[in-house]
Amino acid sequence: MSALAPWYTEASRTILSLKPWLSVIEDTIKLPSGRIVNDYYRIETPDYVLISARRDDGSVLMERHYKQCLRKIILTSPAGGVDEGELPIQAAKRELLEETGFEADNWSSLGSFVVDGTRGICTAHLFSAELLRKVSVPVSNDMEELELLFMSPAEIQHAVRQGDIPLLPDIALLSMSFGNVFLNNNQEKS
Amino acid sequence: MSALAPWYTEASRTILSLKPWLSVIEDTIKLPSGRIVNDYYRIETPDYVLISARRDDGSVLMERHYKQCLRKIILTSPAGGVDEGELPIQAAKRELLEETGFEADNWSSLGSFVVDGTRGICTAHLFSAELLRKVSVPVSNDMEELELLFMSPAEIQHAVRQGDIPLLPDIALLSMSFGNVFLNNNQEKS
Repeated sequence: MSALAPWYTEASRTILSLKPWLSVIEDTIKLPSGRIVNDYYRIETPDYVLISARRDDGSVLMERHYKQCLRKIILTSPAGGVDEGELPIQAAKRELLEETGFEADNWSSLGSFVVDGTRGICTAHLFSAELLRKVSVPVSNDMEELELLFMSPAEIQHAVRQGDIPLLPDIALLSMSFGNVFLNNNQEKS
Repeated sequence: MSALAPWYTEASRTILSLKPWLSVIEDTIKLPSGRIVNDYYRIETPDYVLISARRDDGSVLMERHYKQCLRKIILTSPAGGVDEGELPIQAAKRELLEETGFEADNWSSLGSFVVDGTRGICTAHLFSAELLRKVSVPVSNDMEELELLFMSPAEIQHAVRQGDIPLLPDIALLSMSFGNVFLNNNQEKS
């Protein structure tokens, strides 16, 4: 169906290994044109889960915490890394419980997606969690200090407009959960 | 309002510079607890634009091309890097024209968002472009071979389910453009 040809990867070298956090890989590729490219760089970081946790009233469980990459305190959805040998859904249930103290009776996958189309980065597994039950006190440490809050769809919309929800993965997750809210939001903006 | 304290960045060192593609920065940070962390890693790559380009009939302009990070041919929205000194909207109009040969009469911003909450990566500027007009032949090179196609919202939904639109930034963009489509999609999946 497609006339496109894939690239051929002739070699891959890890040029920076900062396990378990990140690795930078340099690929040597042969393009369909025959040209050899010796320096195509990819980045590998651990896969993670991102959770849209909603209460019966439709409000969403969000976390307020400091992010070094932005150097400010922002709002994000509950998230965390997938441990070795752990299924994404297991990681999602574990992270939600550890970070928030909540369990959910109704889980569904919103899909798994690669974070960056040029460098790769990792795969984010998106989940929806409904029928929340508070079952324990959140586990925390000095690199994971956070505040929990429930936000209505209108408050989410406002926070996105204000730049308080600045991460693209959260926008993907929240848009998939509250699609038509964002659709209205965009139409007002245009 | 928030009891959270930010981290204090005591030093930043670039430990890998592969300009113009990517840099890896190692931060020394002082946590609110007083603990010093010497190895917080951030990644910097060039900012880019991502465009939801729609025809009057509601169909979306998509690109089929090979992505090395996935080692397969996938579907993405028109996208490209923001050049030095260029405004995101200028980059969006330039990239749409270069990659697809289309201009649009109606542009609106869907927001600018940071691609990764842990490592940073870069900022993605999302745009909606409507009232498309074909004005030229796409500019291409052997690392940017692509096929253009218009897809209906239903075809987009199907492609996402099939894994043919595997990139998270595209999911954010398309969800913001076709929110309620994805909302229905998710509800069917759960």
